[in-house]
Amino acid sequence: MKENEFIEKIRTQIKKSFPNLLVGIGDDAAVYKHTVGSFGLFATDMLVEGIHFESNADPELVGRKALAVNLSDIAAMGGKPTFAVIALAIPPSKGAEYGLKVMEGIRKLADEFQVCICGGDTVRSNTETSVAVSVLGEAAEQSPLLRNGAKPGDAIAVTGSLGGSLASGKHLSFTPRVKEGLLLNKHFKIHSMIDLSDGLVSDLKHILVESKCGALLFPDKIPISAAIIHHAWKDRLRMALCDGEDFELLFTLPAGEAEKLTAKQAFDCPVTIIGTVQKERGLFWQREDAELEPILWKGYEHTWDP
Amino acid sequence: MKENEFIEKIRTQIKKSFPNLLVGIGDDAAVYKHTVGSFGLFATDMLVEGIHFESNADPELVGRKALAVNLSDIAAMGGKPTFAVIALAIPPSKGAEYGLKVMEGIRKLADEFQVCICGGDTVRSNTETSVAVSVLGEAAEQSPLLRNGAKPGDAIAVTGSLGGSLASGKHLSFTPRVKEGLLLNKHFKIHSMIDLSDGLVSDLKHILVESKCGALLFPDKIPISAAIIHHAWKDRLRMALCDGEDFELLFTLPAGEAEKLTAKQAFDCPVTIIGTVQKERGLFWQREDAELEPILWKGYEHTWDP
Repeated sequence: MKENEFIEKIRTQIKKSFPNLLVGIGDDAAVYKHTVGSFGLFATDMLVEGIHFESNADPELVGRKALAVNLSDIAAMGGKPTFAVIALAIPPSKGAEYGLKVMEGIRKLADEFQVCICGGDTVRSNTETSVAVSVLGEAAEQSPLLRNGAKPGDAIAVTGSLGGSLASGKHLSFTPRVKEGLLLNKHFKIHSMIDLSDGLVSDLKHILVESKCGALLFPDKIPISAAIIHHAWKDRLRMALCDGEDFELLFTLPAGEAEKLTAKQAFDCPVTIIGTVQKERGLFWQREDAELEPILWKGYEHTWDP
Repeated sequence: MKENEFIEKIRTQIKKSFPNLLVGIGDDAAVYKHTVGSFGLFATDMLVEGIHFESNADPELVGRKALAVNLSDIAAMGGKPTFAVIALAIPPSKGAEYGLKVMEGIRKLADEFQVCICGGDTVRSNTETSVAVSVLGEAAEQSPLLRNGAKPGDAIAVTGSLGGSLASGKHLSFTPRVKEGLLLNKHFKIHSMIDLSDGLVSDLKHILVESKCGALLFPDKIPISAAIIHHAWKDRLRMALCDGEDFELLFTLPAGEAEKLTAKQAFDCPVTIIGTVQKERGLFWQREDAELEPILWKGYEHTWDP
């Protein structure tokens, strides 16, 4: 299949019209109208075969994940995703049909979240499939939620449950917490928020470093995923804190707000208070003898070193 | 080098502040303010090692090209590029230093065109380097210039000269025609515009199909690049029409406007009238016996077929 035929097939696949889209797939750039009074959000994430998904993974799930990780980024800002463009590189060994399945996975999730796929680029690679999605969003009325607003005394909360995402396949099929991010931004006084991609210890550190404070975690409060519940306690705790690819929301808010939030249980997914922000820098938990102990586990961080 | 160190280095590299950027590199998404009364433009383009650049190509030029092809897309809409995000996959064989050079090439061109690099994703691949840039732009006051507005009687015009871009290295170092696109949109009545990436015969066909008309080219008016001037006439004509990767602007405008444009020579680069839009569908040129002959040459189109 040649490029132009491929693009025509995608154009037919993604036929939906959107009120704020003036020009979609088929020109040099998409043309859209801004929503008056909103902030613009802009993010990108890339998946590479053999790194973020297995070569034999279902291509629809690969496409789904490529969009989902981007929606998760917009969710972490308390924003609403609006438009997305797709850059897709496919090797001849996979072929155009594989690419169309990737696009189908993207389309289905886009429909679910009313995101408009407004353009893209489809290229040939020699060996690896890779897909880079870029997404626009808006934070209307409320301000976007950043990483740098955590304050000592804040409760630390997390949506869903943690650990075993890669082993259980959750990383390919998770639901980006867009609805929850919007509700949190609208109804609660959230001080800081991030989505969990590299493991809680890693991602919480981003909040703590940007906010210039530290945290105390309650190990027995960490919501453990059913996928790892059969492991020994210490192991499943480490997996919940370090595995990564959970794509849950991690956020901090004043203790009073946290009580309001957990009392309401306003969400379809559980929300759990797992710790508290403190002035003293670093990440700690409380031992049984009440002493504070630094958490030395590390989340996922890739390196290019051999 | 680990990912977080890599991102910190990029953050330092791209230190410039922009008036409409509220949150840049280092959060889940960038936050920016829209310009009131403008249309938003959104495009993406991806380069893959071994396909769009050689493995031994200068990484700064690879980065430069990755942004330049995106700026060319915004130029082809008559718009001004504003923000860009970078998705960069690097194999361990190349390493983080290589990635920083790619980013340096992107940064330099971004500075030249006052484009704000506001976010990105840096990942590891197994074998191939690939870089997907996504860019936002705006078409303020004037409307964006689309592919579908060509009308019979329009003059067909092109900036710069054509052919031999891959062989001469122009594809790595071309100047995206942002300034020219903005001037054309502001001062002339342009009916349709596209940038030349797959060769004139291919890209002109996009305009003709979208505009439901045909064209007559003047073979002796095609501006031939100095890089291919030593070839026989027929060969250099074919190269100018089919080689691709010229990244010049191809546009149509009423004949009277075209006269105004060429009389003024308002641009730093040459602008040449190379044909005329006609009602009869298809792409033709005039033989010496005055008969119309269809142009059968094809531009570059990739395929995934073995």
